Amino acid sequence: MRLLSPVDFLFTTLETRTQPMHVGGLFLFELPENADKNFLSILTEQMLTAKIPPSFPFNQVLDHLIRWQTDEDFEVYQHFRHIALPQPARIRELLHYVSLEHSRLLNKSNPMWECHIIEGIEAVSKGRPARFALYFKIHHSLVDGIAAMRLVKKSLSESATETMNLPVWSLITRHRSRLDAMFPKDKSWRHIAKEQLATIQPVARELSKSITEYNNPNFINTLQAPRCILNQRITASRRLSTQSYELARFKNLATAFAVSTNDIVLAVCAGALRNYLLANDALPKKPLIAFVPISLRTDESASGNQVSFLLANLATHLSNPVERIKTISASMSNGKQRFGSMNQAQVINYSAIAYSWAGLNLLTSFYPKIQAFNLIISNVPGADKPLYWNGAKLQALYPASILLNGQAMNITLATYVDKIEFGITACDDVLPHSQSLLKLIAEELTHLEQAIDLA
Amino acid sequence: MRLLSPVDFLFTTLETRTQPMHVGGLFLFELPENADKNFLSILTEQMLTAKIPPSFPFNQVLDHLIRWQTDEDFEVYQHFRHIALPQPARIRELLHYVSLEHSRLLNKSNPMWECHIIEGIEAVSKGRPARFALYFKIHHSLVDGIAAMRLVKKSLSESATETMNLPVWSLITRHRSRLDAMFPKDKSWRHIAKEQLATIQPVARELSKSITEYNNPNFINTLQAPRCILNQRITASRRLSTQSYELARFKNLATAFAVSTNDIVLAVCAGALRNYLLANDALPKKPLIAFVPISLRTDESASGNQVSFLLANLATHLSNPVERIKTISASMSNGKQRFGSMNQAQVINYSAIAYSWAGLNLLTSFYPKIQAFNLIISNVPGADKPLYWNGAKLQALYPASILLNGQAMNITLATYVDKIEFGITACDDVLPHSQSLLKLIAEELTHLEQAIDLA
Repeated sequence: MRLLSPVDFLFTTLETRTQPMHVGGLFLFELPENADKNFLSILTEQMLTAKIPPSFPFNQVLDHLIRWQTDEDFEVYQHFRHIALPQPARIRELLHYVSLEHSRLLNKSNPMWECHIIEGIEAVSKGRPARFALYFKIHHSLVDGIAAMRLVKKSLSESATETMNLPVWSLITRHRSRLDAMFPKDKSWRHIAKEQLATIQPVARELSKSITEYNNPNFINTLQAPRCILNQRITASRRLSTQSYELARFKNLATAFAVSTNDIVLAVCAGALRNYLLANDALPKKPLIAFVPISLRTDESASGNQVSFLLANLATHLSNPVERIKTISASMSNGKQRFGSMNQAQVINYSAIAYSWAGLNLLTSFYPKIQAFNLIISNVPGADKPLYWNGAKLQALYPASILLNGQAMNITLATYVDKIEFGITACDDVLPHSQSLLKLIAEELTHLEQAIDLA
Repeated sequence: MRLLSPVDFLFTTLETRTQPMHVGGLFLFELPENADKNFLSILTEQMLTAKIPPSFPFNQVLDHLIRWQTDEDFEVYQHFRHIALPQPARIRELLHYVSLEHSRLLNKSNPMWECHIIEGIEAVSKGRPARFALYFKIHHSLVDGIAAMRLVKKSLSESATETMNLPVWSLITRHRSRLDAMFPKDKSWRHIAKEQLATIQPVARELSKSITEYNNPNFINTLQAPRCILNQRITASRRLSTQSYELARFKNLATAFAVSTNDIVLAVCAGALRNYLLANDALPKKPLIAFVPISLRTDESASGNQVSFLLANLATHLSNPVERIKTISASMSNGKQRFGSMNQAQVINYSAIAYSWAGLNLLTSFYPKIQAFNLIISNVPGADKPLYWNGAKLQALYPASILLNGQAMNITLATYVDKIEFGITACDDVLPHSQSLLKLIAEELTHLEQAIDLA
């Protein structure tokens, strides 16, 4: 039994019916070639009948909102679902299912996570095997989204022939040695959580400073985030839109424009957002400001990470894409100087960012007339090598994020082997057709490539 | 735009994360013989692309908890889902899906209903076509459960060859003439709701009287409902268990024991509950008390119904099933005298019962040491003739009910052609393995049949 840390408490109390505080990961697999036709029923049967109880933190249940207890009555029935999509099912139908699931609150009386296996997704191309997906949903008070994605990833194998016998939620016993490296050895969870909370303060201090300097004419306008349809009160509706793009295209653009790959990611998002807002007759005159968490990972351990964030000027007021790249890149360099890294905090992986973000949200509500940023664009750790689940190749992994009142869209991306995987989470009731951003991102990539040729 | 009626307000404010206030109907169909393999995709495509907006009340959305507005941005994406179950899927897998869905709050920002088409359920027997299901979930403030089931039923046909071109939620335009008969012609919805609320008072008065007579030794002990595991605080977990039983078996028993079919239904439930509680080492020494709504329907119109309810002594303290039947039947006759019918209230179908029930719940919370009843056992209107949906035969229809704190189980049943269809809704976290009641009901039927032979 552990008391809730202040951070856990924050995430459970911030939660409302329209603002669920869970994160999700969507993992898309291709069935092995010549797979047994019962491949998935064997896999799910294994998960449903496993005698090994869920590992920490998958066995932790809230007790009166003040402490965590180990759930002694774990009932897999309430956590696991295996469904198929009606034929022919495209990614579109998969995302419809996942979006509706992502909209819904987790059951607080059980350990707050759900695992969905979704089969029957059409092959990536003719002649290839069919695909299936794993959608994993977990409350932010149990583990942060990136750590959750990493936990699931750790349960996969780099070998196409290895088989696993444990459910995802019992995986820690499988890879204990690798997982141990993710958590600091000499600290209690409570101690870690305390440290995480402490990182809110520097962020808040920085922002406060920036806000008080708001009227200083020399101050760069990253805190003058305009009012925008992205910053509405949200409802419970979520729409997840996902797509994979060739990493090489981003890298080529970075080389051609002599900026970082991350600058190109932001520029592509900026161009797409500009066109999305134009199409909705809602482009602010001032440029959008993005909150961009930056990780400076040094080793596999989570505690050794250096974490910082930047507020990036997305230059959405400029119609010329090359001008936009320049402004974004300059803003990023600028921001790096101003905000610096927050490496004094020992954090679990990227958690500090999430907590800073919640802190920011609270902070900005103290200054309702000043908006710090319009949306979060976050790059989370992916994997360099192909991963497998009992021989089924992981094709793509997409993050699904949390939205907050005033933050109706979140763009999160991950690199996986040779792809950049985008997951756009939006409130479907207030931001119609957010899935159109995927096409606009593809178009923006092409525009930028054409701009190289012209340059 | 309409103001919320007091009753609508009650149902929206009583709702919490662990106490959702929606009702559901599960409709099980058999595909037509030699059906086109796209039968369901055609059906769902029709529903998704219908140009006709949802009818009243499916188009009504809450505005700040004080009024209903017509939803001008109806987005079918948020209301409709078409999934398949992985093969081979039994009713068990269907119920797993529906139970998890029934556990979840509806999105309050949209008209509060959802429609799920679930395909891929195995045939009822070898050589028969596969089955599919419609699970319809709607908030009690929009329409009561029985009316919802009736609305869906009205969208079906008694003809195996008729095709329909409208989604379920646009059905009113289809059968206007028949639906008109369901609602009183000369009254506004607000007026009706007021009348419904008024029915709470007589119920409360009766109960108050009974409670004040609690120490009167001549008073029959129907208000001495014992503390029981059925009367715990609930969590958000729901488990729906359903089964169809031969109506003829109940009727034969009624004849043999010279009691009503409803008495036999209660006796069978009582025997099953007794054995369920025994298995859980939780049988109270005193008999369980059931709240039994009784409808005296006189015509097809809802407003003409006479509605009453009884508190039935289930005699679960007796081990002899024949003794139990006698006690139950005597208690029902007794109750009929004491409570009488509440025919002074003009109500929409069974709504008054539901509202009385909410009133009862409120009332009993004023007398925390006295428990009026242990569970609701409700018989809702079914259909006498087989119904079809574009030629697909409706095999069974099961109601899924609301649970409240202190009421962790609900047994609702409906008659359909030659079957009695049971839907048992229970909180899975506090009442483990509630599905075992189905087997216990079957066993009890057999016990009673054996008792006839012995008599």
